[in-house]
Amino acid sequence: MAQFDLSRAELEAYRPELDEPADFDEFWTGTIAEARRHGGGPELVRVDTGLTAVVVDDVTFPGFGGHPVKGWLVRPAHAEGPLPAVVEFLGYGGGRGLPHERLALAAAGYAHLVMDTRGQGTGWGSGGDTPDPVGSGPALPGVMTRGVLDPADHYYRRVFTDGVRAVDAVRQVDGIDPARVAVAGISQGGGITLAVAGLVPDVAAALPDVPFLCHYRRAVEISDAMPYGEITKYLSVHREHEDAVWRTFSYLDGVSFARRARAAGLFSTALMDTVCPPSTVYAAFNSWGLHTGADGPAEKRIDVYPYNGHEGGEAYRFAPALAWLAKHV
Amino acid sequence: MAQFDLSRAELEAYRPELDEPADFDEFWTGTIAEARRHGGGPELVRVDTGLTAVVVDDVTFPGFGGHPVKGWLVRPAHAEGPLPAVVEFLGYGGGRGLPHERLALAAAGYAHLVMDTRGQGTGWGSGGDTPDPVGSGPALPGVMTRGVLDPADHYYRRVFTDGVRAVDAVRQVDGIDPARVAVAGISQGGGITLAVAGLVPDVAAALPDVPFLCHYRRAVEISDAMPYGEITKYLSVHREHEDAVWRTFSYLDGVSFARRARAAGLFSTALMDTVCPPSTVYAAFNSWGLHTGADGPAEKRIDVYPYNGHEGGEAYRFAPALAWLAKHV
Amino acid sequence: MAQFDLSRAELEAYRPELDEPADFDEFWTGTIAEARRHGGGPELVRVDTGLTAVVVDDVTFPGFGGHPVKGWLVRPAHAEGPLPAVVEFLGYGGGRGLPHERLALAAAGYAHLVMDTRGQGTGWGSGGDTPDPVGSGPALPGVMTRGVLDPADHYYRRVFTDGVRAVDAVRQVDGIDPARVAVAGISQGGGITLAVAGLVPDVAAALPDVPFLCHYRRAVEISDAMPYGEITKYLSVHREHEDAVWRTFSYLDGVSFARRARAAGLFSTALMDTVCPPSTVYAAFNSWGLHTGADGPAEKRIDVYPYNGHEGGEAYRFAPALAWLAKHV
Amino acid sequence: MAQFDLSRAELEAYRPELDEPADFDEFWTGTIAEARRHGGGPELVRVDTGLTAVVVDDVTFPGFGGHPVKGWLVRPAHAEGPLPAVVEFLGYGGGRGLPHERLALAAAGYAHLVMDTRGQGTGWGSGGDTPDPVGSGPALPGVMTRGVLDPADHYYRRVFTDGVRAVDAVRQVDGIDPARVAVAGISQGGGITLAVAGLVPDVAAALPDVPFLCHYRRAVEISDAMPYGEITKYLSVHREHEDAVWRTFSYLDGVSFARRARAAGLFSTALMDTVCPPSTVYAAFNSWGLHTGADGPAEKRIDVYPYNGHEGGEAYRFAPALAWLAKHV
Amino acid sequence: MAQFDLSRAELEAYRPELDEPADFDEFWTGTIAEARRHGGGPELVRVDTGLTAVVVDDVTFPGFGGHPVKGWLVRPAHAEGPLPAVVEFLGYGGGRGLPHERLALAAAGYAHLVMDTRGQGTGWGSGGDTPDPVGSGPALPGVMTRGVLDPADHYYRRVFTDGVRAVDAVRQVDGIDPARVAVAGISQGGGITLAVAGLVPDVAAALPDVPFLCHYRRAVEISDAMPYGEITKYLSVHREHEDAVWRTFSYLDGVSFARRARAAGLFSTALMDTVCPPSTVYAAFNSWGLHTGADGPAEKRIDVYPYNGHEGGEAYRFAPALAWLAKHV
Amino acid sequence: MAQFDLSRAELEAYRPELDEPADFDEFWTGTIAEARRHGGGPELVRVDTGLTAVVVDDVTFPGFGGHPVKGWLVRPAHAEGPLPAVVEFLGYGGGRGLPHERLALAAAGYAHLVMDTRGQGTGWGSGGDTPDPVGSGPALPGVMTRGVLDPADHYYRRVFTDGVRAVDAVRQVDGIDPARVAVAGISQGGGITLAVAGLVPDVAAALPDVPFLCHYRRAVEISDAMPYGEITKYLSVHREHEDAVWRTFSYLDGVSFARRARAAGLFSTALMDTVCPPSTVYAAFNSWGLHTGADGPAEKRIDVYPYNGHEGGEAYRFAPALAWLAKHV
Repeated sequence: MAQFDLSRAELEAYRPELDEPADFDEFWTGTIAEARRHGGGPELVRVDTGLTAVVVDDVTFPGFGGHPVKGWLVRPAHAEGPLPAVVEFLGYGGGRGLPHERLALAAAGYAHLVMDTRGQGTGWGSGGDTPDPVGSGPALPGVMTRGVLDPADHYYRRVFTDGVRAVDAVRQVDGIDPARVAVAGISQGGGITLAVAGLVPDVAAALPDVPFLCHYRRAVEISDAMPYGEITKYLSVHREHEDAVWRTFSYLDGVSFARRARAAGLFSTALMDTVCPPSTVYAAFNSWGLHTGADGPAEKRIDVYPYNGHEGGEAYRFAPALAWLAKHV
Repeated sequence: MAQFDLSRAELEAYRPELDEPADFDEFWTGTIAEARRHGGGPELVRVDTGLTAVVVDDVTFPGFGGHPVKGWLVRPAHAEGPLPAVVEFLGYGGGRGLPHERLALAAAGYAHLVMDTRGQGTGWGSGGDTPDPVGSGPALPGVMTRGVLDPADHYYRRVFTDGVRAVDAVRQVDGIDPARVAVAGISQGGGITLAVAGLVPDVAAALPDVPFLCHYRRAVEISDAMPYGEITKYLSVHREHEDAVWRTFSYLDGVSFARRARAAGLFSTALMDTVCPPSTVYAAFNSWGLHTGADGPAEKRIDVYPYNGHEGGEAYRFAPALAWLAKHV
Repeated sequence: MAQFDLSRAELEAYRPELDEPADFDEFWTGTIAEARRHGGGPELVRVDTGLTAVVVDDVTFPGFGGHPVKGWLVRPAHAEGPLPAVVEFLGYGGGRGLPHERLALAAAGYAHLVMDTRGQGTGWGSGGDTPDPVGSGPALPGVMTRGVLDPADHYYRRVFTDGVRAVDAVRQVDGIDPARVAVAGISQGGGITLAVAGLVPDVAAALPDVPFLCHYRRAVEISDAMPYGEITKYLSVHREHEDAVWRTFSYLDGVSFARRARAAGLFSTALMDTVCPPSTVYAAFNSWGLHTGADGPAEKRIDVYPYNGHEGGEAYRFAPALAWLAKHV
Repeated sequence: MAQFDLSRAELEAYRPELDEPADFDEFWTGTIAEARRHGGGPELVRVDTGLTAVVVDDVTFPGFGGHPVKGWLVRPAHAEGPLPAVVEFLGYGGGRGLPHERLALAAAGYAHLVMDTRGQGTGWGSGGDTPDPVGSGPALPGVMTRGVLDPADHYYRRVFTDGVRAVDAVRQVDGIDPARVAVAGISQGGGITLAVAGLVPDVAAALPDVPFLCHYRRAVEISDAMPYGEITKYLSVHREHEDAVWRTFSYLDGVSFARRARAAGLFSTALMDTVCPPSTVYAAFNSWGLHTGADGPAEKRIDVYPYNGHEGGEAYRFAPALAWLAKHV
Repeated sequence: MAQFDLSRAELEAYRPELDEPADFDEFWTGTIAEARRHGGGPELVRVDTGLTAVVVDDVTFPGFGGHPVKGWLVRPAHAEGPLPAVVEFLGYGGGRGLPHERLALAAAGYAHLVMDTRGQGTGWGSGGDTPDPVGSGPALPGVMTRGVLDPADHYYRRVFTDGVRAVDAVRQVDGIDPARVAVAGISQGGGITLAVAGLVPDVAAALPDVPFLCHYRRAVEISDAMPYGEITKYLSVHREHEDAVWRTFSYLDGVSFARRARAAGLFSTALMDTVCPPSTVYAAFNSWGLHTGADGPAEKRIDVYPYNGHEGGEAYRFAPALAWLAKHV
Repeated sequence: MAQFDLSRAELEAYRPELDEPADFDEFWTGTIAEARRHGGGPELVRVDTGLTAVVVDDVTFPGFGGHPVKGWLVRPAHAEGPLPAVVEFLGYGGGRGLPHERLALAAAGYAHLVMDTRGQGTGWGSGGDTPDPVGSGPALPGVMTRGVLDPADHYYRRVFTDGVRAVDAVRQVDGIDPARVAVAGISQGGGITLAVAGLVPDVAAALPDVPFLCHYRRAVEISDAMPYGEITKYLSVHREHEDAVWRTFSYLDGVSFARRARAAGLFSTALMDTVCPPSTVYAAFNSWGLHTGADGPAEKRIDVYPYNGHEGGEAYRFAPALAWLAKHV
């Protein structure tokens, strides 16, 4: 939709005031601690895919509530020594698919864990395998408004926790170097990347591409696109719940997570992206690492695609990502 | 979309073979018995709406799993004696809304219970208030594919049971004549009407308008429209689950419920309705009461709107419905 | 379409200069006087609707040119004493429909007159019954450009006059208190409400929801949506008639009527409403009662729905409307 | 929309039974006679267009009810002797436009009268100038349902009569040979061509291209496209008027007019035309001249465009039309 | 799309800085010289069209690379003396069509050469007849990105050269006054008009209507509409070619050509035109003739259509065009 | 679009009569021979991609006219001995992209040559690098109508020849077993697969998924979807070229190529695929190998996706493809 958002110069200076709740850290510290109390670690089952250059494990690890979460762990067949790892989160509606669909990181020498997204995995591609055993109040189709009246109930509290536990899990796998773990993802996967980078500040790198789940309120004010639009739709019906809804999202905002991150952050955004408008991405990027105190802000960079929509850089992201991983992980 | 389905004559003769599972009745007898074992009855709280011609109660009754289900009970303020009642089920995505929105039945002398639909109530109108506390496996946005791999898990197993329990509940309310209860609804509400009429054969009348949730397989073969299209979308991703999906829906098919119904049935359909194609409605109508044995088939009628889409007869349905209720309830 | 119009603060201060014609009052005084010279009053025919809590009359009253205009008068069956009344005008394309469709006001104790809109009543719902016996020059489908080259010929001159005559009519009905009459309506009905409130300043209250027919020129400059878009389409063909068209609408502008109003005004608007953009509504609201001189500005309030489009508050409007009527009528 | 209608072979054999009213001829004989009773003839005012190869007159002639109808008469500047003439009717929503827009027939030696369509002339192009001074009952935007409950009131009764009177008018113009008059038009213009050819059987040729206004009922059953779709929309609201509506159109059906035609008929149709589906055109074509008795059926031909939609043959029609006119006029 | 671009006052002052390459004139001087070296002149073949008021020749003249380019030359049959001429260029995707489609200029006394556009002529209307014998690198459907990596290879280098050679050709035709030649066109035709007016400054008048091919970069930044959108699409894939693409278009920009023009320029633009946004047209208009030195700026005017989209003035342009031609040619 | 084509049983029996030209084999024998006369072989340049499990070469080989055609050759880094190879052709509008995008076949032990498609590579994804140096007559955007009036000029004559030469090229690469070569592709890539399998009958296997470029005429008769729809659009303008167009495509029809194939053929189709309708795919499948004479028909299988559109089986195709390759190559 043309270049509908702020100008490039405005974007670079954009740092909005958000209503971050005072107990934000408390909320998340408690959430993660509770999830970890369920214990358990990854279970790996070797899969015969017909591929000879990589080995694939079907992984199950405990997520929020100890619920089993699925993933694929793909590793090079001919590599030695403890491997660096990339934990990847997925876009909205998709699932982990089939293991041969994402081979490039393993082919480049990384252990690659693709985390399934609970209760999704049906909208496109090859599907997912992870249930979300938690019900919800009245909600719109889609996950944005599941449990939207209380941050404790919201769907993304569970998913972000799954993401943290995925990092925990990969660090426990034999042959993976727990100090050399990066997180990455596109769109919703980028939003989960922000959350995990904020909640597990010692990951080595974070690579959010066109991240979703940032600065929700501006998103719905300037764009109708889904899935942010699910919030609009919910509020258009439940006109009485506006305050509760924005309070809930204040615990889930990628901008707040970004402030707490310490990893080297490689962002991307696209100026014609109405799904994840560039100003919402810059709001996170411009806050990256600001909260981390004495050791100075984290290294960061944002690559801008002026003529793309939400597809952003697509396969063009691979080379800069490999270079970033090589330098920081 | 013009008159895209079978011709009028073909519709009137259309009685497809469906794969009804052998344990259909067993499945549902067990399901309803289990729900009733949770016990409990309706709780009524009088609401001040500013309306003087009717009285309104905010009703909570136990549904599937004993989960609390909400409803509005609207009754004429100036009526006497035990009242006949109509239990109404709602269209896809909507909720019970606000009590002043549906006054005509009470203004005509009926006790009118509007049952909220669990976990919906966010897509349009004034919203709903009933959570669905049960999670699900990977599912598409919307409810059609929640728990779609096993009839025991499917969302509509819970909703149909809620509907049966709504009839149970209204029959326990003081001042309502338990022998004079009808069920009614439009679209999804019509589909629930079919299910409840099949599961509670002693309701006096059933009024399904442009009913949804019948003959699922034909629906997706001849139309792309949502919400049947959610099934298509699910199967387009989970290509391996085709058999499981159709098996699940064979326990939820309005045609099977229609065969078991004994109430006087007043249907409507529209020949340009791509959402609930007329052949799927006729499949249920043509089977209405066939399964009920010695006392002969139930009385039934179908009103056809040749130039309407899914909106069908809308407010034009009120007069024939009143007449049907007057005769049969 | 997201929040596309002015910001909330700008809206609250928005008071555009409009070219109100010098003979605006003369034009309308003459128009109304001429209509009243045709004389006649409402004729009521009792209708059997099957409803027992209300009584319904099929009303015919003389409108513009003395032409017969239809309406439903719905009153509580069990009320006593002279009743307060609400005259309601309808949205674009619709008709008075069937009498059971609008029962809430009568159920709350008001006499409720629903005025049919001449020549419309075919676009949605249950239809209307009032012809418009006046032809027109070349016009676009729809009514916005019927007679658009001269205010004396314009369709809305007739409709606004019908609205004034509807108030005249309801005041003549036995059992209705002529001092306690309010006017109300949604969208086009809200626009007619503004006009009647300006032309009959002694109505007690006016409740325009998301009103249409205000500040036409800005509407077409910032939005393509119909029906304002009919004006754009007309001018895109009849490029030579721009001045004549804007002159005509200067006699029909809700902002001018609002300035002349004295009733207590309860407005609503929605920030994502492209059909009746919020700045056009605020232009009327901010002018409400400014023209009324010595007795100070009228009481007024505007309720804003930030996440709704043209549907605005829908059923959520009922409670505040009842409260407003209780206080002012 | 691909080739959605009958196959080519089926089209060539398609001759549906239509319910032609017994008093069809009486209805039209009376209508035309009444119009002619208003008397009057064409008034011509020479227009300075800057064109030197043609002369242009602004024509006003009495139509239905004696109402003034406008047209352009364009004639070659350098021709001699009584000229053959073509009366052209226009497509839906358009007007006679500007005189330089249609020069080819005059440049080929014909007097060319372009008849404005009353009350239209605003939907596209350069507009029209003819009012329709007759009002109507509740109607949909557009003209299809104006007066739709009675053939005497229907809009097209007036327009078809205007068309007959246009032929009357051109025959009275000095320098035009009244025996050498053809009628022609595209879409709505083709429908009017059919009507005039049936009502004035002594025109020498008729050239309906992709004609509208034939076999209305089939059109709405197989296509949603406008403007036939206006009928669907009307009936979707006014569900009670189905019989009256079809009765009205039975007096206005191009198939009935085609049966009465005696002129040499050159039709065209397009197999992907959803606006005027080919089966409705063939229904008229296959009936052309059947009713004309002793002198055998009229000469006719239909040109078929298999890969076009409603645009049909466009400029490719000119050469065959010139040849047809040269042979028959 | 409403009035989406700059305000009227901003438009009138809009004169953006563009990166005109230093060798712009050298590039074009060389290009035109090379084309002229191929020599040759127009070949005319008289066509029998059935038209008697005009004579039509099928013209072939040498364009870029000496490639044969087709056109229709239409002249009044009854005119005398050397005629003034108008060379018209066509809109995107169209072809010269059939000769009877454009008669008004000849009917007004002008020789009218319609230049076919190489390789187009297939998108609408009656088609074209001129191949483009030059291949291209990877390109999007459409012509905007054919050869987009080097101005020497770009499609429009060839087309603009064809346009210059069309003027050369018409000046060689017997009976045409070479000093009285104007250039004109709509949309793409308007863009070619700008180019030819800049490259052949001694044409007497230029009439670009809603011209395309100006200020490309702003066009893609503020609008998604095609065909400018082809550039966006190309860059969204070939993210690495941004600089090369903008460099190429800097040799093809109508704003640069406009600066070099000396003819009397009659522009038009429409404020709702998203295809050729008004600011891109004003950028050319405001620069018209600025580069021409001592003899002062050329005469110019722009007609603005506030309520039109890309159709602009359509047939309303004929009268002002005739007047402009009469005064300046 | 639901299941719009023939029923499953009809599809399995569908074998339409096509007008195959008598000189079909002569045309192609000559074409391929001429291409081979240009000589030359693949040039490989090793590329540093950061991938360690595979080696990647940037390949250039001579295609039609000896024009250089690009491709990626991806091979396992740790494999030994002569490798079997798969030559893959791409979908419409795409290019070879970046080498890390298609790793699965190499990771499974195959040499994988991805052939760029000349002149495309700009519509989606990461682009392509191969020009098409041949121009064309008037054509629609897209490649379907480039050179459509003569099979010798048609774009796909060049591309199919490129495909044959790609097989020639891969067979010349050291370390690849020339007897163990398969061809594969999706959509357009599937169409090219059919052509190459017909023209190089000694390839070991062919895997066309949802193939395009088969039974063109039926495709445009039953579907509007692009890119077949480019043919419709062309014929809707160039109404005079119908015969020439169908003659041209008779030399390019995948059904004719399928008859000549001898490789083991693994097809797929989807019943809701409007882009490549299932009947056009079955027409090729049902003809597969029929022309091959004494050694009996080739082995073949078709996998059907009843609930998918043109995306077909997507990643679900990998496992059956690997199994087919293992058995036949």
